[in-house]
Amino acid sequence: MKNYVNWAILAPGRIANAMATAMNGIKNGKLPNISGDKIRLYAVASRNLERAKEFADKWHFEKAYGSYEELYNDPEVDAVYIANPHAFHLDSVLGCLKSGKHVLCEKPAGCSRDQLNKMTSLAREKNLFFMEAMWTAFNPCIREIKKEISAGTIGNIINIDSRFCNRNPYDPNDRNYDPRQAGGALLDLGIYNIYFAMMLADFSPITAESSAVRMLKGVDAWNSVNLTFENGIVTSFQDAMDVPSTTGTHDAVIYGTKGFITVENFFMATKADVHVYKNIWGSENEVIREIREPFAVNGYEYECAHATEFILTGRTESDVHTFKKSEDLIDTMDALRRDWGMKYPWE
Amino acid sequence: MKNYVNWAILAPGRIANAMATAMNGIKNGKLPNISGDKIRLYAVASRNLERAKEFADKWHFEKAYGSYEELYNDPEVDAVYIANPHAFHLDSVLGCLKSGKHVLCEKPAGCSRDQLNKMTSLAREKNLFFMEAMWTAFNPCIREIKKEISAGTIGNIINIDSRFCNRNPYDPNDRNYDPRQAGGALLDLGIYNIYFAMMLADFSPITAESSAVRMLKGVDAWNSVNLTFENGIVTSFQDAMDVPSTTGTHDAVIYGTKGFITVENFFMATKADVHVYKNIWGSENEVIREIREPFAVNGYEYECAHATEFILTGRTESDVHTFKKSEDLIDTMDALRRDWGMKYPWE
Repeated sequence: MKNYVNWAILAPGRIANAMATAMNGIKNGKLPNISGDKIRLYAVASRNLERAKEFADKWHFEKAYGSYEELYNDPEVDAVYIANPHAFHLDSVLGCLKSGKHVLCEKPAGCSRDQLNKMTSLAREKNLFFMEAMWTAFNPCIREIKKEISAGTIGNIINIDSRFCNRNPYDPNDRNYDPRQAGGALLDLGIYNIYFAMMLADFSPITAESSAVRMLKGVDAWNSVNLTFENGIVTSFQDAMDVPSTTGTHDAVIYGTKGFITVENFFMATKADVHVYKNIWGSENEVIREIREPFAVNGYEYECAHATEFILTGRTESDVHTFKKSEDLIDTMDALRRDWGMKYPWE
Repeated sequence: MKNYVNWAILAPGRIANAMATAMNGIKNGKLPNISGDKIRLYAVASRNLERAKEFADKWHFEKAYGSYEELYNDPEVDAVYIANPHAFHLDSVLGCLKSGKHVLCEKPAGCSRDQLNKMTSLAREKNLFFMEAMWTAFNPCIREIKKEISAGTIGNIINIDSRFCNRNPYDPNDRNYDPRQAGGALLDLGIYNIYFAMMLADFSPITAESSAVRMLKGVDAWNSVNLTFENGIVTSFQDAMDVPSTTGTHDAVIYGTKGFITVENFFMATKADVHVYKNIWGSENEVIREIREPFAVNGYEYECAHATEFILTGRTESDVHTFKKSEDLIDTMDALRRDWGMKYPWE
């Protein structure tokens, strides 16, 4: 048995560059708990061979393919990081799994529970590793935040506020505005708000409701959503693709009975401050801990290391971002879309 | 016909002190558009005569009554400012109107549309002035904000965010925690969030939904609400009586397509900053106007002057905070309570 994973990247776009940066970081020994020789930067596949070659040269991958099929058919590929837009994940994930490749698929893995089920079923059937690349599940800063909450520092969590709003000026060629590519704010940005709350509320079953989605060009441009967890925690969040956050950052606040935690850019958190109230009215507070967890590389290295470790030890489902968590996540988004009467063109 | 109004205050508590401060300010010529001799600080009524006397002495009212009935029966009283907790408004408003007094009643006037209807019907029948004392309707800073919005400075309004959260530690004697006194966050604090959005969205009909109310001791302790207006504007707000805002302030943000307006302590606004985006992504902005509208006294003087002017000119319904607006406001709160399955003990 090999003691390294031959990684391939499918669709060398923006997010693939981020992952390639992380993979090169691991390769160069940036993560203490995984040695660089555990991963081999093996292949890149694009529908455009020139693009694949350029990416492979830039990030030190050995091979470049001008079609996904060539990647599927190369027996040397152990695992594939799938980085195309989410509307194409189903085809790519099934293609990889059918060819016996382990899969790390960008979030959301499926655009619906139905799509996700097809992926997890085939992964189980083929006994292959499959994981949605939900990088925040492995974020060191969020792990520290969870420790503070478990220690009771801010009391019982009452609610979680977060906002992930960007402004992308309308462009008919932008996938965000294309219903055929499952564009919209929810699957792209809202997913982070949902997952953040789910991590902190420990994934209890939830209800998800929203009354303020705004449709634009057939996609959801803006959402304001409340989620209720079984343990009484609620989260209120907004996500948008046509209006920015005022601050230009994407911050979250976790409110507890004894204090609160502010998280800067929560979807790529490296900084959080733990505040406790100084009086019973909570009108004054003090910061009792500044959590600072800079990334070893750029934040994508943790999920890649996790997947690599699981693949090398023959485990097929993550114990951190489990199938169940992917299911809870897409179920929440499916439920919201049902409320909005929003369907993708193929549904 | 008298050219002044003999004002009385019913229930000399905290909010009555605020109004008495404002009335004294008008009396002393603090508002340029109303002369001090238009109002006479005539009487105060409490169920406790000593309390009424003390208040009358402090704020220069001429008479003090140890019962509301004495106030109703004094033919010299022209208008009454009703300042008791809202669960008692119905009795007090009807008592005043039956006795031929004009009424300015603290918000919310009725705890339900049914209660409000009884008040407006009797006011119409008796041809008396009646207004819910929704002070923010007369707030000079909010009026300036509306001008900026009408001028198109921030483009089309997309959404309005606000948060009015206080922490009142549990006290069984606190009216906020008493369902029999219609305690809870919505009628006390949420009402400001709703009205703020209604003012800016020009009172189009709305839908009101929430999935994250938390009940505590039989009252709504925390709400997260989305309102949708016919013109597409949405507002998302939170109000709470058991968890503070992180900042200790109660700020609102009005997001538009070209910029946004931040409002400090929106329920008593005197400061707002108008920001416009400096690029198409909205990632940078500049403040193009700092609205600064300090109160002449404490903010309560504007609604009092308005009521005084209307009473003196024989008009019975405000053209600023109309019956319709009070109705829209309570209808919204009734709809939310219905969603929550929340009834007051007398319902």
